[in-house]
Amino acid sequence: MPYPDTITLTNPLDMHLHLRDGEMLHNIAKGSAKSFSGAIIMPNLVPPVSTKEDVTAYKARILEAIGDERFTPYMTLFFKPGYDRTFLESVKEEITAIKLYPAGITTNSEGGVSGFDVEELRPALEAMGELGIPLCVHGETNGFVMDREAEFVPIYEKLAAAFPKLKIIMEHITTKESVAALDRFENLYATITVHHLIITLDDVAGGMLRPHLFCKPIAKRPEDREALLKVALGAHPKVMFGSDSAPHPRHAKESCGCAAGVFTAPIALQLLTQLFEHHGAPLENLQKFISNTAQNIYGITPPKKRVILERKPFTVPQEYNGVVPMYAEENIDYTIKEIING
Amino acid sequence: MPYPDTITLTNPLDMHLHLRDGEMLHNIAKGSAKSFSGAIIMPNLVPPVSTKEDVTAYKARILEAIGDERFTPYMTLFFKPGYDRTFLESVKEEITAIKLYPAGITTNSEGGVSGFDVEELRPALEAMGELGIPLCVHGETNGFVMDREAEFVPIYEKLAAAFPKLKIIMEHITTKESVAALDRFENLYATITVHHLIITLDDVAGGMLRPHLFCKPIAKRPEDREALLKVALGAHPKVMFGSDSAPHPRHAKESCGCAAGVFTAPIALQLLTQLFEHHGAPLENLQKFISNTAQNIYGITPPKKRVILERKPFTVPQEYNGVVPMYAEENIDYTIKEIING
Repeated sequence: MPYPDTITLTNPLDMHLHLRDGEMLHNIAKGSAKSFSGAIIMPNLVPPVSTKEDVTAYKARILEAIGDERFTPYMTLFFKPGYDRTFLESVKEEITAIKLYPAGITTNSEGGVSGFDVEELRPALEAMGELGIPLCVHGETNGFVMDREAEFVPIYEKLAAAFPKLKIIMEHITTKESVAALDRFENLYATITVHHLIITLDDVAGGMLRPHLFCKPIAKRPEDREALLKVALGAHPKVMFGSDSAPHPRHAKESCGCAAGVFTAPIALQLLTQLFEHHGAPLENLQKFISNTAQNIYGITPPKKRVILERKPFTVPQEYNGVVPMYAEENIDYTIKEIING
Repeated sequence: MPYPDTITLTNPLDMHLHLRDGEMLHNIAKGSAKSFSGAIIMPNLVPPVSTKEDVTAYKARILEAIGDERFTPYMTLFFKPGYDRTFLESVKEEITAIKLYPAGITTNSEGGVSGFDVEELRPALEAMGELGIPLCVHGETNGFVMDREAEFVPIYEKLAAAFPKLKIIMEHITTKESVAALDRFENLYATITVHHLIITLDDVAGGMLRPHLFCKPIAKRPEDREALLKVALGAHPKVMFGSDSAPHPRHAKESCGCAAGVFTAPIALQLLTQLFEHHGAPLENLQKFISNTAQNIYGITPPKKRVILERKPFTVPQEYNGVVPMYAEENIDYTIKEIING
């Protein structure tokens, strides 16, 4: 059934966002802050955000960059196995989650975790569980590119079993194996990007090679996308929207060694609306996927914002301040008509 | 066991080569003609090489471009289901094989075959079998990029069974499924590129995205590469070297939609020597893979040429006349020391 010509999304949240720093932060932060009520901000700067001072300073830079937009940056720390309870207690009020990267697995993740020894991780993860700080995880091994995420699922399960009080968010999942893991452990949750609901490896490398669709984790097989669609469109209570919108300057994408990341933040809500409608999913499921479920899982109350979309073709710009978005110069079905604060 | 410091390869043949036309032909043809005795020349120009006049004219342009190099361009026609016995008899002396492309599957293949109806193909393929004209096939369906070649294997088998007198060359195979098919039908043969013996999808898209390693068929999984290495290094009597060296100008590779093709012709012999040595394969197997097996299968006698390689680091140029080769600006172990005609 088609959606009404005008629809309202309330308090949209992007539960996985890269805002970068410096010039790039200033170029792109407003794009997210305008149409979202808040976002989980990834800490993989150079150097990573790993102290209380880092977090407060980065948050201040973000707030400065977004100006008067009504938007909460939910801050994260870059997980280090050495974090102890005292440190975590001292930083608890400043952060919403902690992000764990396996070492060297994606952009600026060199200082991440190598090996996943439960006893080594126990002090930090047990304290996080007790303090109610969720652990967001980029779940990939360093195996073959199409297998990396599925190979990581046993690590998710090991952590979920060892730390039952810890909420573990499987970030930007791309495989049917990760989807299946969701229902095996009460404390496993997931974010899904909009691009992984749309593309497969075919779109990246099946025709021409398309660098602007290249990301980590790489888009997988059609049956993986089907599994993701099923839980996203069905508003699975443990599945949240997280764009993983990851801007790189055009030259870093269109060159000999293209950086990983798809830039979707400014078009995510329009695209998701089109996608949910196209698949015949109830509008209320979209509302859950882009806000309510995340509020439940994280226990957060975002600032009030209503995004009014109308059915009107929108030609995606070629660039947003030097960053090429997904669907650049193509039409999508919905346009943001108005954004109402409060 | 390491190879001697100086080794000689005799009458090397590249059984799958794209020389293009016009300026590109002039820019790259000498590179192949210098170090190879001959090559099977692919017919996917715009428009495709599909008449006797096309073949003779293209051959003349190639000979003009290579100047006084001692090199035989073994010409091919672009397969059309309408080719009949009279036509094939008339063109037989001008060609060495006919290349079949499924429609729209790779660069300039729009006029290829749709559907593989044995009865529709019977007049042409039966006549080719009787006249001793091999059929070279780009074996991919239009399915998911990682499955396309494996999905085509049943079509290979259908054709092999229906036309037992026809030699069918599975071109640039990349999967264990194609390797397995080799031994199931007497009249199935294969070419393998040097890049598919070296890279997997990990090299294309596992770290940064590397457009200069993007090709069709796309590089597959580690176990596929193992299967290819086994038959190449083992000098399987039905497996020949074919570079599928496919030049595109740099801008067509490093852009928003990168063209498919890896340019290896000028470094293929050096790379293969390094590869065979690295894997401990006997030198005589390399000689078979790069010449003798192809002579047996095709019944051709190439012009005499000896390529003397020495163990001496060779820094691959950044470009050969505007075309970026594989391993650009990297070192390989062998250098061509001398080429002796006769």
